[in-house]
Amino acid sequence: MGFHDQLQRSWSSAGSMLCVGLDPDPDRYPAVIADAPDATERFCRAIIDATADIACAFKPQIAYFASRGDEDALENICHYIREAYPNVTLILDAKRGDIGSTATHYACEAFDRYGAHAVTVNPYMGTDSVEPFFDHPGDGGVILLCRTSNPGGDDFQSLVADGSPIYTHVARKVAEEWSQLGDCGLVVGATYPTELADVRSIVGDLPLLVPGVGAQGGDAATVMEHGAAPAGRGLIVNSSRAVLYASDGADFAEAARSEALRTASDLPA
Amino acid sequence: MGFHDQLQRSWSSAGSMLCVGLDPDPDRYPAVIADAPDATERFCRAIIDATADIACAFKPQIAYFASRGDEDALENICHYIREAYPNVTLILDAKRGDIGSTATHYACEAFDRYGAHAVTVNPYMGTDSVEPFFDHPGDGGVILLCRTSNPGGDDFQSLVADGSPIYTHVARKVAEEWSQLGDCGLVVGATYPTELADVRSIVGDLPLLVPGVGAQGGDAATVMEHGAAPAGRGLIVNSSRAVLYASDGADFAEAARSEALRTASDLPA
Repeated sequence: MGFHDQLQRSWSSAGSMLCVGLDPDPDRYPAVIADAPDATERFCRAIIDATADIACAFKPQIAYFASRGDEDALENICHYIREAYPNVTLILDAKRGDIGSTATHYACEAFDRYGAHAVTVNPYMGTDSVEPFFDHPGDGGVILLCRTSNPGGDDFQSLVADGSPIYTHVARKVAEEWSQLGDCGLVVGATYPTELADVRSIVGDLPLLVPGVGAQGGDAATVMEHGAAPAGRGLIVNSSRAVLYASDGADFAEAARSEALRTASDLPA
Repeated sequence: MGFHDQLQRSWSSAGSMLCVGLDPDPDRYPAVIADAPDATERFCRAIIDATADIACAFKPQIAYFASRGDEDALENICHYIREAYPNVTLILDAKRGDIGSTATHYACEAFDRYGAHAVTVNPYMGTDSVEPFFDHPGDGGVILLCRTSNPGGDDFQSLVADGSPIYTHVARKVAEEWSQLGDCGLVVGATYPTELADVRSIVGDLPLLVPGVGAQGGDAATVMEHGAAPAGRGLIVNSSRAVLYASDGADFAEAARSEALRTASDLPA
């Protein structure tokens, strides 16, 4: 099943467009698991089990594993999600971007090794950095960085060429060309509602992955208003730290569920 | 020692500006090592030993290791380079790009785990995706994608904003702001000599990492003519496949050395 079909299944199953980001930081694990040798796996599994019926997607951030040489834990977590919660969409947040045979290797990493339904990709290197992901067997999706939620997102994404900012050029390229090659999505930050609406007006019903709700200050209702697809749904709204670290006590999983429920209720699918 | 100082030491020691890219493809290993359980490590070490006195830098491409879950081999290879050949600069080609704490984790990956002197980074997310690499202890360098050597490099990098293409905005941002934060370099493809000269005119003596010589069709003499720094040197000219796969026989290491010598002679430092 391709990324878009899987996502429809996930929206229906969860009844929400909430995505739980898995950015495991050992310094913030609750004391009850902090000292376990497999603390990262245990922490992530507890969060996953507590939120899998509420979330349309899980989004592990690979840097948190790669910095510690903990790819095995990431593999185990990804395979656990795929096996235990087949209705949930698995997005590998890797922001890869390279050409030709290198991109083919990144496609293997995301789709074969980690079993992701979709992977985040940086568009800066253009078409031949995206094609190899679609040439890879298995209908994996590609979610392109478009307008990111950080202050530095302005540096180049907001430069104006031919009368419109660079991020809208990315949106048009994805809508008009790359989405003919396979299932695409775009990353647009919650912290820029006007630009979220701009991108939505360009890309029709393509799914938008929206970081920046919760700890980064974005608001779920505003995201729904400016970002939902014309046909309904269309959003994957990520919350990481606000869910993961809702409590540092023994009740961390229950607290994560409460926070996820609260956010999900603002993001009906 | 910071990236720029290390690079000066490497240019002096090698007498060339050749960088050997390590993109190990098991399908192309010579028969004499193809069946060894540690074939990737053996292949890379043989190439390294055969070229370390000629090359100013080695540039492992992480995707080739990550696709196969072979990060341990990459760690061993990187540590081998650092220990056996301290005069050579180690560049991790990862093209990472993310913000805040995620970028901090990528800095740990490149500098602590793999011991790189510098890492390639995608500029699309702007200043706060670059700062964490410089905040990381150890004076590691950052080499920003600017004008890449692939056809798709035109898609966004050549869009014109305020009278000049996006890649020149990246070059100016690096020269005027980011290089105040730490040791920077830029990636500019050998296949666009005019644009290489453009970037050089903007960035003064900053080092340029130039892929696209050899298998991709770029010419070393042209790169020297258009890309050398005003003060001399200033280039890290990468060749991967032409060196790695110069022969598929038992003489692969000698053939790699011959090819590296041939290219290095066009790139005096």
